[in-house]
Amino acid sequence: MQTTNQNLLNDVEEVLLMGPGPSMVHESVYKALSVSTLGHLDPYFIQIMDTVKEQLQQVFQSSNRLTIPMSGTGSAGMETSFVNFIEPGDPVLILINGVFGMRQKDVAERLGAKVDTMEYEWGTPVLVDEVEKKLRQNNYKIVAMIHAETSTGVANPVAEVGELVKRTDSLYLVDTVTSLGGMEVAVDKWGIDIIYSGTQKCLSCPPGIAPVSVSDRAVEILRNREAKVPNWYLDLTMIINYWEGEKRVYHHTAPINMIYALHQSLFNVIDEGLENAWARHLKNHKILVSGLEDMGLTMFVDPGCRLPMLNAVVVPDGVDEGIVRSRLRQEYRIEIGAGLGPMAGKVWRIGLMGETCRPENVERILSALKEIL
Amino acid sequence: MQTTNQNLLNDVEEVLLMGPGPSMVHESVYKALSVSTLGHLDPYFIQIMDTVKEQLQQVFQSSNRLTIPMSGTGSAGMETSFVNFIEPGDPVLILINGVFGMRQKDVAERLGAKVDTMEYEWGTPVLVDEVEKKLRQNNYKIVAMIHAETSTGVANPVAEVGELVKRTDSLYLVDTVTSLGGMEVAVDKWGIDIIYSGTQKCLSCPPGIAPVSVSDRAVEILRNREAKVPNWYLDLTMIINYWEGEKRVYHHTAPINMIYALHQSLFNVIDEGLENAWARHLKNHKILVSGLEDMGLTMFVDPGCRLPMLNAVVVPDGVDEGIVRSRLRQEYRIEIGAGLGPMAGKVWRIGLMGETCRPENVERILSALKEIL
Repeated sequence: MQTTNQNLLNDVEEVLLMGPGPSMVHESVYKALSVSTLGHLDPYFIQIMDTVKEQLQQVFQSSNRLTIPMSGTGSAGMETSFVNFIEPGDPVLILINGVFGMRQKDVAERLGAKVDTMEYEWGTPVLVDEVEKKLRQNNYKIVAMIHAETSTGVANPVAEVGELVKRTDSLYLVDTVTSLGGMEVAVDKWGIDIIYSGTQKCLSCPPGIAPVSVSDRAVEILRNREAKVPNWYLDLTMIINYWEGEKRVYHHTAPINMIYALHQSLFNVIDEGLENAWARHLKNHKILVSGLEDMGLTMFVDPGCRLPMLNAVVVPDGVDEGIVRSRLRQEYRIEIGAGLGPMAGKVWRIGLMGETCRPENVERILSALKEIL
Repeated sequence: MQTTNQNLLNDVEEVLLMGPGPSMVHESVYKALSVSTLGHLDPYFIQIMDTVKEQLQQVFQSSNRLTIPMSGTGSAGMETSFVNFIEPGDPVLILINGVFGMRQKDVAERLGAKVDTMEYEWGTPVLVDEVEKKLRQNNYKIVAMIHAETSTGVANPVAEVGELVKRTDSLYLVDTVTSLGGMEVAVDKWGIDIIYSGTQKCLSCPPGIAPVSVSDRAVEILRNREAKVPNWYLDLTMIINYWEGEKRVYHHTAPINMIYALHQSLFNVIDEGLENAWARHLKNHKILVSGLEDMGLTMFVDPGCRLPMLNAVVVPDGVDEGIVRSRLRQEYRIEIGAGLGPMAGKVWRIGLMGETCRPENVERILSALKEIL
């Protein structure tokens, strides 16, 4: 047991966050975080909750009534999306081409699902034709995939797979932690039944909260479960009663100030315009890629399925990737990401998410890399 | 789908939070919330994490290595404390005298535990002699209870029950969401194996994070589980590797700014001195109670087991409790709590937690109640 009392906050430096998230936070969102805390049943806070739901509907492009932020990080969104809909033995298909697809599998298996997978080489996308064949031959309660695979920088064909899932009875479950706010996400149009995201990527709100949206059809299935949801904290059947209706029923104390911050960051995204935000991500991504290629660096993912907000760059032969990242952090106050899991040592991950995604930041990382390499 | 874009944050009024939490937040903690976000693997952020662990050890009075904040609210702390240690069929004893004991039962049952309970009239404490008898006749993997039952204002005999559990092989699991920082909590001395708390009560940090501490013996049991923890998000066997050791392994993106706020609020508590904070809670509680009794109001709980930070007051005959609360909020900008569950309509709950617990606030609520009643 220590008996000292240290306060480290005065010495936090501003770092340019160009990793896989968290991304840079706008001044207005920092300000929102420190607005006076209200009670979780306060009438004015309930107005804020209602507005956040409407904002999330806009950003998800969905009229789903159950569109709310969960009280945890993006991974809590993933847990929510599986634990509410899986009962032991349920057949689930997961399309995997990176760490986060693997994580979906792990989450679903722990909950007793009978998990079937289709696995694709990391750095390449899920193949629609193969999924079509698979869905013709099998019935699943849930078909799950990752939209923006943060571990590799690959964009998966969520719209196209959605067309296939629409022809089945399966629930379509999609992870948009990294994509939401930085590229098109169209829940209703794409036939997504269960979707989750995070805040610390293209929404540029600090981590700690997970937007989710659930179709009426999926809510119906949830309400007809045989057993209670085996996770009290994330049980949507109870949480609905706090977020909806005349009389709000206390479930757990909502993370008030984080919800303020989400409200502000959604305000900022909607104020810019979704299409404008997507275009900004694409434009700065192109400038980054062309700058990197001018330096002789190679992108890990083919142009056809590259994410704009997460750029995996092949570490050149003979370069110690850790030293480069460490020098970027120490000498240039820039964070970029290492490779995750099997990608460790092979790629850097340069994030262009939300507030980070500005031409001056692209310039800063390019010139820093030029000096170091 | 709405197409408007509203920002409600400019009109948030400062409300004096005298409910069952959240409590008032110190200016320094608001400031901490808006310190520049760092990456979750940033070397300086890891220093902050290490300091937060040491601060939590001090506040929990424990040398437990596994002493960390979980990425969710206090109820996520409860979920963590059960899901990591229960395997299907495990016998668990829960001592219940309010909503939060009932919640522990619900959480444990959903996880497949064989739950036995001892129930006590709400407003009265758990009886040590009866627990002694029960433990002599039965073997449990876990014995669980609530320290400060927020729904009734009762302090339960955690130290005394701890002496009994020490003589068994059971793990002792205690909820200190409302007590931590406002009255003595001595994890090691009391033989507690698994403890959780919240931040928005006597630590006066906004809600969203849950301190937990686990004894080495409980960690050993965790490591020898037969099946994986059926909750990926809260799996301590993986989360340990992010919070401990030379090389920190990414699990999920930590709620960076909430951890800043916790760091600051723990700094404030330690700076005041734990004993001083406890004494302040007791002193203001006594002033409040004597003021309420002078007005002819009655406390719901007997003096011998009253919590200092949560004061349940009997609603007088003929008074509409909802109108009183609503007038307090609208005319006086004061929030107090309603009764929870079966206590609804019967009591008000006046919180004196953390920063709320100041003589000027006691005066404010007493004079407002005098005017209204």
